Amino acid sequence: MNNLIESMRDLVIANRIIAREGVVDGYGHISLRHPDKPDRFLMSCSRSPELVSLDDVLEHGLDGEPVDADAPPVYLERFIHAAVFEARPDVHAVVHSHAPELIPFGVTDVPLRPIFHTAARMGAEVPVCDMREKFGDTNLLVVNREQGRDLAATLAGNRVALMRGHGNVVAAENLHAAVMTAIYTQRNALMQMQAMQMGEVTYLSPGEVETAGALAPKGTLGANRTWEYFRHRAGCANF
Amino acid sequence: MNNLIESMRDLVIANRIIAREGVVDGYGHISLRHPDKPDRFLMSCSRSPELVSLDDVLEHGLDGEPVDADAPPVYLERFIHAAVFEARPDVHAVVHSHAPELIPFGVTDVPLRPIFHTAARMGAEVPVCDMREKFGDTNLLVVNREQGRDLAATLAGNRVALMRGHGNVVAAENLHAAVMTAIYTQRNALMQMQAMQMGEVTYLSPGEVETAGALAPKGTLGANRTWEYFRHRAGCANF
Amino acid sequence: MNNLIESMRDLVIANRIIAREGVVDGYGHISLRHPDKPDRFLMSCSRSPELVSLDDVLEHGLDGEPVDADAPPVYLERFIHAAVFEARPDVHAVVHSHAPELIPFGVTDVPLRPIFHTAARMGAEVPVCDMREKFGDTNLLVVNREQGRDLAATLAGNRVALMRGHGNVVAAENLHAAVMTAIYTQRNALMQMQAMQMGEVTYLSPGEVETAGALAPKGTLGANRTWEYFRHRAGCANF
Amino acid sequence: MNNLIESMRDLVIANRIIAREGVVDGYGHISLRHPDKPDRFLMSCSRSPELVSLDDVLEHGLDGEPVDADAPPVYLERFIHAAVFEARPDVHAVVHSHAPELIPFGVTDVPLRPIFHTAARMGAEVPVCDMREKFGDTNLLVVNREQGRDLAATLAGNRVALMRGHGNVVAAENLHAAVMTAIYTQRNALMQMQAMQMGEVTYLSPGEVETAGALAPKGTLGANRTWEYFRHRAGCANF
Repeated sequence: MNNLIESMRDLVIANRIIAREGVVDGYGHISLRHPDKPDRFLMSCSRSPELVSLDDVLEHGLDGEPVDADAPPVYLERFIHAAVFEARPDVHAVVHSHAPELIPFGVTDVPLRPIFHTAARMGAEVPVCDMREKFGDTNLLVVNREQGRDLAATLAGNRVALMRGHGNVVAAENLHAAVMTAIYTQRNALMQMQAMQMGEVTYLSPGEVETAGALAPKGTLGANRTWEYFRHRAGCANF
Repeated sequence: MNNLIESMRDLVIANRIIAREGVVDGYGHISLRHPDKPDRFLMSCSRSPELVSLDDVLEHGLDGEPVDADAPPVYLERFIHAAVFEARPDVHAVVHSHAPELIPFGVTDVPLRPIFHTAARMGAEVPVCDMREKFGDTNLLVVNREQGRDLAATLAGNRVALMRGHGNVVAAENLHAAVMTAIYTQRNALMQMQAMQMGEVTYLSPGEVETAGALAPKGTLGANRTWEYFRHRAGCANF
Repeated sequence: MNNLIESMRDLVIANRIIAREGVVDGYGHISLRHPDKPDRFLMSCSRSPELVSLDDVLEHGLDGEPVDADAPPVYLERFIHAAVFEARPDVHAVVHSHAPELIPFGVTDVPLRPIFHTAARMGAEVPVCDMREKFGDTNLLVVNREQGRDLAATLAGNRVALMRGHGNVVAAENLHAAVMTAIYTQRNALMQMQAMQMGEVTYLSPGEVETAGALAPKGTLGANRTWEYFRHRAGCANF
Repeated sequence: MNNLIESMRDLVIANRIIAREGVVDGYGHISLRHPDKPDRFLMSCSRSPELVSLDDVLEHGLDGEPVDADAPPVYLERFIHAAVFEARPDVHAVVHSHAPELIPFGVTDVPLRPIFHTAARMGAEVPVCDMREKFGDTNLLVVNREQGRDLAATLAGNRVALMRGHGNVVAAENLHAAVMTAIYTQRNALMQMQAMQMGEVTYLSPGEVETAGALAPKGTLGANRTWEYFRHRAGCANF
């Protein structure tokens, strides 16, 4: 199997995984930098992640537009992905979601912080981007390059950024890291809300965040324990 | 397919969707204004939304009564729908539910307000109707035209009204908007409860509520991304 | 179909319903007074409700013992049911569960009270029974007639009693009422916990509790909307 | 069926059960002391519990290493199990998980305590182990014998220990007790969080913890009511 087909297949599986795990619902999307052309990225046309199939995957340019002029309708917020890939050569996969547990952290002053090791990959700092500061009252969607770049600037070198009143973006070095970061950041959020109701919280130390956050599986996706698990749960064991 | 059959089919799918998404359980109902006769509306006979089929859909008049004198038993609270269709010519679809996350907002002084863009469609204000003010101690059900009209008067020009100690009503310009508003109002409620426990909450600004709340999909229901998603989840992909 | 077989069938369905709705897990049980012999009641042998079948249903006497001396092992806590049937001729169905949302109300001073009409059937007052007061330190199980009668005395004329550090008992005039009361009492508990976090709560008024609590479906179980819904969800549509 | 095969089969079922009940996700593991060789224990190779099959079960020594030099990759944290089996001859089954409801208790000063009888098996005291005290900033994983022994020392004679910012370990006298303790400790955690928000909590008394915690089913696993239930839910009814 060549690189491109394998990437497309993995991207379809990743779509199904984030749907199954509650990261996305009818909205939200995940993208993967093209394995051979770093100035392009792969992402579905405008379809809910649970339903994405190989036929839906399109090449997009770093301007956010589909390469094929005859492409079916694409996601309105493709500029989130385009801007992150443009600003961050180290990033190879991006998730945008409205993961519900993260919304409260975007609309209050409480910083989202890792309280257990599996969430260390979200990093020590999770910035919050508020579009209103630069763009005034909008419908909160990121619908052009300027808005995408503003979000990428807030994200800066981090793994996760929250978008006030909207959702979040996850940027990672590969598809597995993006999926895992999206899932465990969300789970951390619920635990953190619960722990904060109980009393003073001991978060991971900076050194623990760095060390546990750097944990990465060796070998191929196909040989990875958590990928095997999540793809099985998503009904893609034999895809 | 003619208008009526297509409307009935869409209404059946909408019933299954709101059941699948936890908006309704054994109780609750959804209705659609008749596509050709604005003084009638379509709604199931007395059956739980998860089980409604084409055979169950009945025409009702704006008096709340089924047009067919030989109709099977109908919902006790059909007067909610009748009164809203009567008072609001702009409304073409109505949901009544006991969505659990909304009950706490109906029995406390806390206003339900949109904290993320997808819930902006609930509008800036969600009034609360308390039957006891006008009708004293009842079983809280809306069982006649007078009670229906009282609820419609509280709803006024809004999209959503809460019913103290009972549930809520959603009124929208079409079936898709009604379903989406019901689902995302409920999800907003849980996020708002969580955010309020954490600290001062930044809600959408009035301008954002207006702009994001006016977002509406173009094209037919069949071509709509979220409708495709929700109907698939509800087991109606091929209905 | 004769009364007894029909009762046994309905009891099996009720077992599956309360398992499906999260009222019970591996523990918990539901019983039905014998349709022809008021001094006997029907209940499964020692099997988890989700797995109960017609073969498992046994006749028990009001002493809590199975009528058939060769019966398979029975529930340790059958004395809960026996004592309630003994003390309350008006009661025809009893549920004992560890429904998780109710546990916090049994171990704090917060009274469980109906905040929405569907839960009015739990009644205005839900007493809490603490075995320790009379029996000292035990394993908290109700394992003899004396303990059963103590619980029945606390329950008195109510529909629901909580058991501190253990669970609850629901007593109703028929199987449908018992199932509905068990389900909606549990759902009320979660809503009440949420509402109490938000501020001052308006509970149903005494008059509303009485009026809404007296709502009862007409006709047979088979013709009942919510029973049709719950049995369908429990996989018993064609049982 | 000989002892070893039966043990392996039960261990596979136990893996599926703890996955189904939300104790573990892609991470986490369960082990069983070898039925014939007390200085060995059985545990899967590095595979998520939901997917473990008979082929995956390996013998491990008390040094944490697989007996077979050609074994497939094993769990990084096998030293948790090895150290507990080494220190506690009374223990025959060990679970390590990141059960989400327990994380908040590991990162705050709130002691986890049984509030209902089914959770009494967790014991009156649940110590918290913080690796940082002895090992400084790590990735929080227990990856050698020294770290395993440190955890076992904190666990001491208890059934459950929490691991700050990581998860927990459950140690029990047999597989059924380990599974039940893992499940009900987690459920207790959620109830306790809820109850603490409501007011002063009455926990089980020391005498109740002792008496209810000592409850143990008689007879074989195959004849056990809760085991039958959980294995059925896990899809292993006929395994």
